[in-house]
Amino acid sequence: MSDSRPIGIFDSGVGGLTVVAKMQEILPKENLVYFGDTARVPYGTKSKETVTKFSVENVEFLMEHNVKLVIVACNTASSLSLDFLKRCFKVPIIGVIEPGAREAASVTRNDRIGVIGTHATVSSGAYEKAIKKINPRYSVFTQACPLFVPLVEEGWVDKAVTDSVAQIYLKPLKRRSVDTLILGCTHYPILRGVLRKNMGQGVILIDSAREVAREAREILDASGLLNGSGSKGKYKFFVSDEPNRFIRIGEQFLKKRINCVKRAV
Amino acid sequence: MSDSRPIGIFDSGVGGLTVVAKMQEILPKENLVYFGDTARVPYGTKSKETVTKFSVENVEFLMEHNVKLVIVACNTASSLSLDFLKRCFKVPIIGVIEPGAREAASVTRNDRIGVIGTHATVSSGAYEKAIKKINPRYSVFTQACPLFVPLVEEGWVDKAVTDSVAQIYLKPLKRRSVDTLILGCTHYPILRGVLRKNMGQGVILIDSAREVAREAREILDASGLLNGSGSKGKYKFFVSDEPNRFIRIGEQFLKKRINCVKRAV
Repeated sequence: MSDSRPIGIFDSGVGGLTVVAKMQEILPKENLVYFGDTARVPYGTKSKETVTKFSVENVEFLMEHNVKLVIVACNTASSLSLDFLKRCFKVPIIGVIEPGAREAASVTRNDRIGVIGTHATVSSGAYEKAIKKINPRYSVFTQACPLFVPLVEEGWVDKAVTDSVAQIYLKPLKRRSVDTLILGCTHYPILRGVLRKNMGQGVILIDSAREVAREAREILDASGLLNGSGSKGKYKFFVSDEPNRFIRIGEQFLKKRINCVKRAV
Repeated sequence: MSDSRPIGIFDSGVGGLTVVAKMQEILPKENLVYFGDTARVPYGTKSKETVTKFSVENVEFLMEHNVKLVIVACNTASSLSLDFLKRCFKVPIIGVIEPGAREAASVTRNDRIGVIGTHATVSSGAYEKAIKKINPRYSVFTQACPLFVPLVEEGWVDKAVTDSVAQIYLKPLKRRSVDTLILGCTHYPILRGVLRKNMGQGVILIDSAREVAREAREILDASGLLNGSGSKGKYKFFVSDEPNRFIRIGEQFLKKRINCVKRAV
């Protein structure tokens, strides 16, 4: 069996492109339709009700493109809205929380796991819940890092200021001796260097993007929905605001040229 | 003549409360209806088309409250959408750009004016246009400062990091020897201390909020629409997302308790 229908991916903006980058590596033959809700970004400071309303609209948009699987490539929307989305739509929908939680649980050596994310992700408690469900013995320590997204979008990845901000945010997690840190926001892999430096070499950084791409492969494989035809998947990008800013910042995330971005609304 | 209808004020979020604070001082008898578009905040990274669509919806909401004047208490919306709003609605509508530009032009001694704001405000060129219209001899130097809003919203007003960010942003303006700096975003008055320290005592900081409140007084006075009755105006606040975050951050801006915030959508 082979299914050439695209996989749908949505995020509040450009962050989900870190998931697209991993899909390229792990599922290179799959066609993708990406939607970035750039007119209403960010989601991380907004309420469950608002994020869920936006997320439903985003999945409805992807469904119009006949997708075979939806990836919620946004930690905030995954934390607040995934259960509701699964009840609303028949297509399989996966978020970034459970794959990240599973990977963290499998690699920690001292059972102490740190999680960084937006205010909304952290206060939802979604990562704690997912990790404790795997095994209640794990200790989970969380920290909201709301300045990381604007720092990445400003392109200040290597500036001293970003290092100072990271020191402030990460200090409480270091004090708790976590040996594993979940990057619970799709923007954070861009800050891998500064996070690595501040947490130290002994701490394993978990990038949910890679884990969710692996989960997508497992689900498609198990249900015979992988795309066997063609050599390289085709990608379509849609945004709800004008595309230029998305392209400019997005190319940092994808580390290649982005063509063919359309305004969707 | 006396007119007790409220004045309508909108902003993308909490920032416009700096205008409300000045209205309290300058027009204490006026009733106000405030709308903060917290579900779609921020506007400063979004396109003219999107910001204009949102702004039209916001004015329509205020019109339902029978307002006698609308203040666009958001520099981005004033820069991108004011002309369009004025064409769409019959009620008088004022923005924050022209009052700020006029004040800057009247106080500069060396005719060199700096402007700080969001990406959208700065790239719109709205302040340059307004200042050059007053007198083309003025030199205008602009700088986008996108990290100031998240720093204020994080409550990091007095942190060393904020000082470092201000140093980076303000350096080019200091090099240009501006003697007057327009705070072209309603969040920035909260950072007055750090801006003052970095620019030096000789530079005059122009807070658009105060100027727009004065302009509102002039317009209402000239058309006999001031409210003569009552001793203290009543304020109603509406937001498009859930009110808690608005209340928490907004109390910093207003320097008093905010009661009675309702969700509007």
